[in-house]
Amino acid sequence: MTIRKVAIIGLGLLGGSIGLAVREHAAEIATTGFDRDPDVRAAAGERGLAGTICETAADAVRDADLVILCVPMGAMGDAARNFADTVPPSAIISDVGSSKQGVAETLAAALPNHTIIPAHPVAGTEQSGPNAGFATLFTNRWCILTPPADADQNAVDALDEFWTKLGARIEIMDAEHHDLVLAVTSHIPHLIAFTIVGTASDLEDVTRSEVIKYSAGGFRDFTRIAASDPVMWRDVFLSNKSAVLEMLGRFTEDLTALQRAIRSGDGDALHDLFSRTRAIRRSIIQEGQDDERPDFGRKDHGEKT
Amino acid sequence: MTIRKVAIIGLGLLGGSIGLAVREHAAEIATTGFDRDPDVRAAAGERGLAGTICETAADAVRDADLVILCVPMGAMGDAARNFADTVPPSAIISDVGSSKQGVAETLAAALPNHTIIPAHPVAGTEQSGPNAGFATLFTNRWCILTPPADADQNAVDALDEFWTKLGARIEIMDAEHHDLVLAVTSHIPHLIAFTIVGTASDLEDVTRSEVIKYSAGGFRDFTRIAASDPVMWRDVFLSNKSAVLEMLGRFTEDLTALQRAIRSGDGDALHDLFSRTRAIRRSIIQEGQDDERPDFGRKDHGEKT
Repeated sequence: MTIRKVAIIGLGLLGGSIGLAVREHAAEIATTGFDRDPDVRAAAGERGLAGTICETAADAVRDADLVILCVPMGAMGDAARNFADTVPPSAIISDVGSSKQGVAETLAAALPNHTIIPAHPVAGTEQSGPNAGFATLFTNRWCILTPPADADQNAVDALDEFWTKLGARIEIMDAEHHDLVLAVTSHIPHLIAFTIVGTASDLEDVTRSEVIKYSAGGFRDFTRIAASDPVMWRDVFLSNKSAVLEMLGRFTEDLTALQRAIRSGDGDALHDLFSRTRAIRRSIIQEGQDDERPDFGRKDHGEKT
Repeated sequence: MTIRKVAIIGLGLLGGSIGLAVREHAAEIATTGFDRDPDVRAAAGERGLAGTICETAADAVRDADLVILCVPMGAMGDAARNFADTVPPSAIISDVGSSKQGVAETLAAALPNHTIIPAHPVAGTEQSGPNAGFATLFTNRWCILTPPADADQNAVDALDEFWTKLGARIEIMDAEHHDLVLAVTSHIPHLIAFTIVGTASDLEDVTRSEVIKYSAGGFRDFTRIAASDPVMWRDVFLSNKSAVLEMLGRFTEDLTALQRAIRSGDGDALHDLFSRTRAIRRSIIQEGQDDERPDFGRKDHGEKT
């Protein structure tokens, strides 16, 4: 099974980056693209996010070997139903959603006779929309495939090959485990960031202007992910509710223990934790999953002397 | 009052950056430096972090117009007592500590006859030690001075002028308000980051290897500040206990409200918050307090197409 034509449904950061990455790294594959927003379609056409920008999803998926849904999780069902009548029976259906159990159920209900292989490229920025994508977004990032237990192995292999061409590294896991892992490495960090940025905005004894001025003390880091797409993230928390609540419970327990250590002046407990957490960053850098330069290499620091 | 000679006590990230910034931006000012760790003194000499590296703090402060303590908060008292006998009566005593009420009391007790003007340059990276500093660390960052109510205005002006030469923007506020503001913009963000990185490290159902591999989903951002100096941060939380606990209480209330919204499937509440938090990031970028490029301009993304 060889993928020669890919239909990209939804032309925001992820959909657009897939289109650009195909053009740069797998030019033998044709792409069509659709977005329900006409302004997005126009911008996508100007940037060349897909070889052909179609006016309907039904048109975009005709003759596709692979259809990738790049819409918020809450819109997956409608998006799939919109092209159900024209998508070839042989087409692989996939997506890029951040949680996988819910998506698998939604797509199976909308397209009961298709091979559905959900996927999650663990990559992104805080920006969204048709101007946010770029061809190297997936380079050296992991793409997790969560095929159902009875999935067609040829389809899994074809999707693996597709994402590998785009620069990603592939991992296969079951959807339930995916949702637990990503609750830790993505959903809870976003939830915490949204919360602290909200808390800081609403204070009466510290002004918003002060929060902004002194944000280089650490707060500004959180504002980056708290600037992510609101609709996408609303849908992540609604669709991965149980894993998020489970992990949030564990975080809250640990935070309460730290609060107690501060209240009682237990410097050793604080020092122990703060020493352990350094090791994880070193591993992340060694594994090529972050920029090793201080402060992510932010440009406002100029060069080291 | 003109500052012609500055003694830097403690030659880590902050102390070293002050020395390098003086050399680059205010070469007319002489610097001496001391660190209690002989290895740090040796490294400081090699990098030229101060014009003269002294073997004792008592030597470093002789003839100084300004002494800046750049040691963890818990070490301020001992560090000041070590040079109390040789520091000129006219020297301004200052520091770079992250909380200010406790430092003011500690330094006043150690040097009761000196003019003490605590200061906090809101700048740093996750790295520490004598090799971490660089001359542009303070460029366009805010430096907050917290002079006591009866402070000598000439001394305040001289310190203002000094930090301005190093590229910083100056704000004056009282120590109590400083400690509340920085609890929000720096201490709580660090506490949360240390906690979530600790939580993620200790899970049994998600391996550490998985946490590292999929950290690009958001978690890796938190690992940067959770890699900060453990001793410094232990002392921050011990010395700013009441403001930290107050702000932590407000954060926890907001997190609990969001937890309830997730549990009850209240998508509107989630969307409302996630939409509001975008605005703060825009303001931070407009004010020149962060890099506007997506993902802080991390280099692993390559260039936009």
